[in-house]
Parts: sequence; C-alpha cells; structure tokens
Amino acid sequence: MWDRLLTDCHVATLVPQPGNPLGAFPNAAIGIADGRIVRVGKRAELAGFRAKEVTALGGAWVTPGLVDCHTHLVFGGTRANEHAMRRAGASYEEIAKAGGGIASTVAATKAASTDELRDSARRRLHALMAGGVTTIEIKSGYGLDTAAEIRLLNTAKAIGRDEPVRIVPTLLALHALPPEALQNAEDRNAYVKMVAEEMIPAVAKLGLATSADAFCETIAFTPQEVERIFTAARANGLPVRLHAEQLSNQNGAALAAKYKALSADHLEHLDAAGAKAMAAAGTVAVLLPGAYYALNEKKKPPVQLLRDHAVPIAIATDCNPGTSPLLSPTLAMNMACTLFGLTPEEAITGMTINAARALGLAHDIGSVEAGKAADLAVWRIADIAELGYWIGMPGPERRIFAGVDA
Amino acid sequence: MWDRLLTDCHVATLVPQPGNPLGAFPNAAIGIADGRIVRVGKRAELAGFRAKEVTALGGAWVTPGLVDCHTHLVFGGTRANEHAMRRAGASYEEIAKAGGGIASTVAATKAASTDELRDSARRRLHALMAGGVTTIEIKSGYGLDTAAEIRLLNTAKAIGRDEPVRIVPTLLALHALPPEALQNAEDRNAYVKMVAEEMIPAVAKLGLATSADAFCETIAFTPQEVERIFTAARANGLPVRLHAEQLSNQNGAALAAKYKALSADHLEHLDAAGAKAMAAAGTVAVLLPGAYYALNEKKKPPVQLLRDHAVPIAIATDCNPGTSPLLSPTLAMNMACTLFGLTPEEAITGMTINAARALGLAHDIGSVEAGKAADLAVWRIADIAELGYWIGMPGPERRIFAGVDA
Repeated sequence: MWDRLLTDCHVATLVPQPGNPLGAFPNAAIGIADGRIVRVGKRAELAGFRAKEVTALGGAWVTPGLVDCHTHLVFGGTRANEHAMRRAGASYEEIAKAGGGIASTVAATKAASTDELRDSARRRLHALMAGGVTTIEIKSGYGLDTAAEIRLLNTAKAIGRDEPVRIVPTLLALHALPPEALQNAEDRNAYVKMVAEEMIPAVAKLGLATSADAFCETIAFTPQEVERIFTAARANGLPVRLHAEQLSNQNGAALAAKYKALSADHLEHLDAAGAKAMAAAGTVAVLLPGAYYALNEKKKPPVQLLRDHAVPIAIATDCNPGTSPLLSPTLAMNMACTLFGLTPEEAITGMTINAARALGLAHDIGSVEAGKAADLAVWRIADIAELGYWIGMPGPERRIFAGVDA
Repeated sequence: MWDRLLTDCHVATLVPQPGNPLGAFPNAAIGIADGRIVRVGKRAELAGFRAKEVTALGGAWVTPGLVDCHTHLVFGGTRANEHAMRRAGASYEEIAKAGGGIASTVAATKAASTDELRDSARRRLHALMAGGVTTIEIKSGYGLDTAAEIRLLNTAKAIGRDEPVRIVPTLLALHALPPEALQNAEDRNAYVKMVAEEMIPAVAKLGLATSADAFCETIAFTPQEVERIFTAARANGLPVRLHAEQLSNQNGAALAAKYKALSADHLEHLDAAGAKAMAAAGTVAVLLPGAYYALNEKKKPPVQLLRDHAVPIAIATDCNPGTSPLLSPTLAMNMACTLFGLTPEEAITGMTINAARALGLAHDIGSVEAGKAADLAVWRIADIAELGYWIGMPGPERRIFAGVDA
C-alpha cells in the first residue's frame, strides 16, 4: 500500500530516452511512499497498485520540482535605489561614490538583525517556491569575516527549517574584499589567508556548508587566490564551485575543473580549453541569464561550445540584490531560451537534473525516478515547451515536496 | 460614514508634484465610498472620518491598480512549439512553412470553441490580475472576418463579466490579411474595403469596442490602408490607435496623430517628426518591452526623444502568443527600466495614469484621487522603486477593485 498515487498526467521524467531528451510520456502515474517515488510508469501499468490517496491531475504535466542551484538569497536591504540611479543615467562610479555596489549590501547585511535577514529572505524564498522550486542553494558572501559568514549560513539553514523546501548552503568564501583590506597587497593577502586558514575550517567543522565557492575575476580574486581557497576547501572536505569567466576570461573554468569543481558558473567568456577541462572533470556549467539581462551584457555564454563538449548545462536565478534580483525560476528558463538560445528541453533539464548535478545531489533529486525524493511540480499547460515559452508565467498548480502538496 | 478607510500606508498617488513625479507621500490614508475614492491625505488629516471598515496596511505602499493598455489576450492555442523551433535554430521562413506565425493563431482561434477561448484567456487574465492589473485592454484581430472578430470581442467582454476587473475591448481592424486575400492587390483591396464598410460599422453598432486599431508595417498594412480604416472608424464614432514604427519607420505615428489617436504603440523606429506630431495631438506612446525582448530586437524606442517632446509614455505587456507571451505587469515595468532605460517612476506612471490616458479613461482610473474608481494595489515593499527593480516579482499583497479586496 503506497501513500499516494498521482494519475491522469503527462510526465517529464528527466531520464532521457533516444529522441526524447526529457524522457516524457503521456497517460502516466506516479507511486509515492515515505516521501519518495516508488514507481513511475504508464497509468495502465500501475493500475494494480493501491494507495491511501489517489490524486487525478486532470491531464496536467508533472516535472521534477525545480532546483535553483545558484542564489545569494540572504542579504540586507535591496539595491533598488542603485538600479533606479543607473536607469536615470548615473555611472557605476557615481553609484559607488554614493555608497552603492556590493559594499552597500555588505553594510546593509551587517546592519540587519538576524530576524530581519531571515524574514526578508523568506519572502524571496516563498516567491521562488511559488514558482516551483523545491530545492534551493543559498550562498553566503555578504559577511566577509568568519562570524558574519557563519551568521549568513545559519540564517540560510534557519529559513528552511519549517518550510517544505530543501536548502543547500554554500560558503561563498571569496566574494569581495572587505573595505579594510582594499588598501594594499599585504592586507589583501592577509584576508585570503584568513579565509583559507580560519573561515573555511570553522565553517567545515560546524557542517554549515556543502561546498565552498569563490569569484574569480579582474574585479574580484585572482586564480592564485582562488587556488589557495580551493586547496583549503578540499583539505577540509568541502567540494568547490566557482564564479568564472563572467566579465573576462581568467581560465577559471579550467582551474575549477582541476579541483573537480561541482560547477563553474556564469561562463560568458569561456573558451574551448575551459569547456574541454570541464567536460573531463564532470563540472557542470551553470548559466545565469538573469545577471546577463540585468547588467545589459552583450556577450552570451558559448552554448554551442558546451553542447559540442557535452558539458552539462544548468540554469539558475542567481537571485541577488545587485546583479540579478530575479524571483521567478520559470522566467530564468525563459531567459535561457530567449537570451541564450537554449531549447526548452535544455532549459528544463537545466533547472532539474543538471541543477541537481551542480549541487552533488543527482542521486536524490532532479528527476522523476523510483528511489528519488517525491519533489514534483504539476503544471496546467498543454505542451511541456510552455515552460520555456511564457514570460513571467505563474508557478505550478501544485507543488509537491516529499510527496505532500505544499 | 465611508465604506472603508485604508490607513498605515505610503501612497503613490500618481498626481505629480514638483520634484515628486509619483505624488508619493508616507503616513497616508484613503477613504472609499460606493467603490470610489472620496479622500486621500495624510493619516492625521483623515483621523476625524469614520468608516464601516478600517484596514491598517502595516506600512505597505499603495499605488493605483495597474492598467495593461495593450494586450491580445483572447486567442486559441499557443505558439510554444514555434518558440521552441526558433531556439532550436529554425528560421522564420521554416516556421512559416510549418504553418507558424500569426496564421497559425488565426487557425487555432477558429478551431477553438468559444468556451475554450474564454477559459484559456481567463487563465491569462488571472495571471495578470494576480500581478496587480485592475484594468485591461483586449484587442481582437485573430478573426479576420466580421463574425469572427465579433466573437473575439464578445469573448473579451464575457471573461470580465464575473471578475473584479475592468475590460476595455478594442477592434484590431487591420492585423493581418486572411490567407485568401494574400494573392493579389484586388483581393487585398477588397479585404480593406470590407473592414472599412462592413466590419467597423457592425462592431460600432453593437457597441463592442471602445476604439479601432491597426498594424502599419511593411509586413502588414500601408499608411494608405490604415487611413481608410481610420476614416471609417472616426465616421462610426470610434477613436483610433495604431501599431506604429515597430520594425521600420512608416510615419505611422504622424498618421495616428493626424487622426487624434489615443495612442501609437511599439515605436522602436519613431523619428522626431512623429514624436512632435504625437505631442501636439496628445497621442500616448505605448512602449512594449515584452515584444522587444521576445524578438531579440536591437533597436530601442527613442525614449529621450519622447521625453524631449513631452509625449506621455505608457507601458503594457502586449500579451500575445507570438511576439510577447508575457504574463506579468511588474515584469513589463522592469523590462521598461532594464531594456529601455526608463526610470522606475516613468515605468510606474506608464502602467497607471498614462496607460489610462491611452485608453481614454484618465478621468476615471489611473491615479489615487478623490472621485476616481477605488482600484488599488498594495505592495509589501520598502521602496516604491522596487516595482521597477525586482525581475519577476510576485504580485501585490492586496488587489482592491472598486473598493473591495479581490
């Protein structure tokens, strides 16, 4: 006797079949017990099984619950004013002089009480959940010292505590330099050393993060600095990820691959060597069209290069106050299609099984398969491609977490 | 004794003050009776008034209900498949050969029962209402004969009948040529003549449309054809609007202005003469960033030119299955800021009072003023600029139509 049987639906299993990249089929049924999927098949095949609850879905489409594998959800304040200044003609320099940019979010985060941080992040979490998200990665990175980063990671954990959602916290170990380390090379070096020798071990010991991330860019950290952090992360048992090749080519993707990174993210300036290295290492390419859109970027990530090297492509919202205040996972999929030229199938794969891969959770979530968590989204659409087609569409009709409508 | 008093809020009245384009102020209160606003002021000023119901809004922002002044909401099918084909590399020509483009929507609309048309349009309407829309314009234009256009206008009217929303139906008299009129100039001429002499008088007599619209473009109708339709519309008491200068400069804006059009819409290729003519005629510029985004256009409408000539700017979703399947009014505002460089204040003005102007309804809706309909949106945001800042944000916390939460 199962707990639940979903019937009268089409399903996109995300277990690819030849000529059927989403492993989709009509007239499906899904058996659920103990919060897990126990069987997926044609309705007729499952007719003999009994369940405590049978839910007829009226011909809707079922997908895995969406996985948002790259967000900076916990922060103080907004940067709405900065956005407004930019539209009114202010330059980045003027905005920075007015206290804008990432420094303003670090300051607003420091000024916010933990309750305020939790409540504002929870409102954003609810928006993403309403859009179909059942698993979300949340990075720290607006603290810039060990205690402040730990507070952000604890807050990320806390907002998931009573919510039907899986939170995956990431230590964004190198995001920006704190103002006091901006003056000279010695201070800069001391900051990176502190992160490697104090922050990473402390976070790893507390078990607060599932991976360590960094921002490799001319305006952020050098490959050498990133490598120190990656070495420390690996020594402390944390897999790594990297913000790479967003604004320039720093060979960050190859560096990430060298450390068997779960993912390299952004990748607008990725080259063939980087793609090849990622493919060999199994590193997922996480594309973030919200940041490309919000920054009015012109250079798109090399999607065909990723396809040619069979690098798995994931899509995420990158929800953050400065460069991607994006609150809709379906809009992230639409932007991936409209702005980056992904097919709807690639976009859907990018927010399900490939996003799960980027989090190291593909054994547990991201597809509709026996043994996986029963995290599902039920969409009132006629064609699965509509998930990449509508711009700003409402969320799923039902969102199922661990087998329960939530 | 009023019916309702809203207190403990900030209000953006949309009655501009010097240095305060949104006429915004904190610690506000709004009195409502018989579905209309009777007084707006500082909370202290309204302290002496009594109301049957007092609603404290906990510091939220109140704006006019949003006005979506350009949509094609009623249609059969979707064009998700075409969108998918385009992302997979198919050319427009290949799509057209496969039966795509506007002709496919005309066929799908013809094939759909009136119940199906109503139900699918209502789902889209609900998405837009959830986003804060209290007034929506709906164009016909997928019928291409008199009976079919009347069916679409009747459907547009019907979906609003039991819903807390104001529907403004528009006859899109010249949208595309029916397939049977594509062959030669004689058939083409006969079609335009039929629209001018049969369709427009029939629709006007039935009182089914508040204005007549046309699509002036190389791939659609010539200025001369549009002028025939405008003449007929005016003769039948219908104000006019025009899809103008979207893909090329046809001097459509000046033509629209000559006929005192309520609006000219799209306007990517507008020139100074067109802007000047619009300003003189009081014709509103309706910008449609969803179509620009979905079509990956590169040429933006000349926003500074519109500002220089003091042409009122409105923003709309252009919700339609082919070139703008956009279901979120707040996303339209964000796109107006991000893609077209509008300020948040311009975007908010564009979806409230200036959108009301584009519908000829500025006397009744679009601002929070005594005497106007009590159509309001209540937003859980700290800064009014957040309405242009978040990408894909959820709708308002409360949506008030004719004074009632709905």
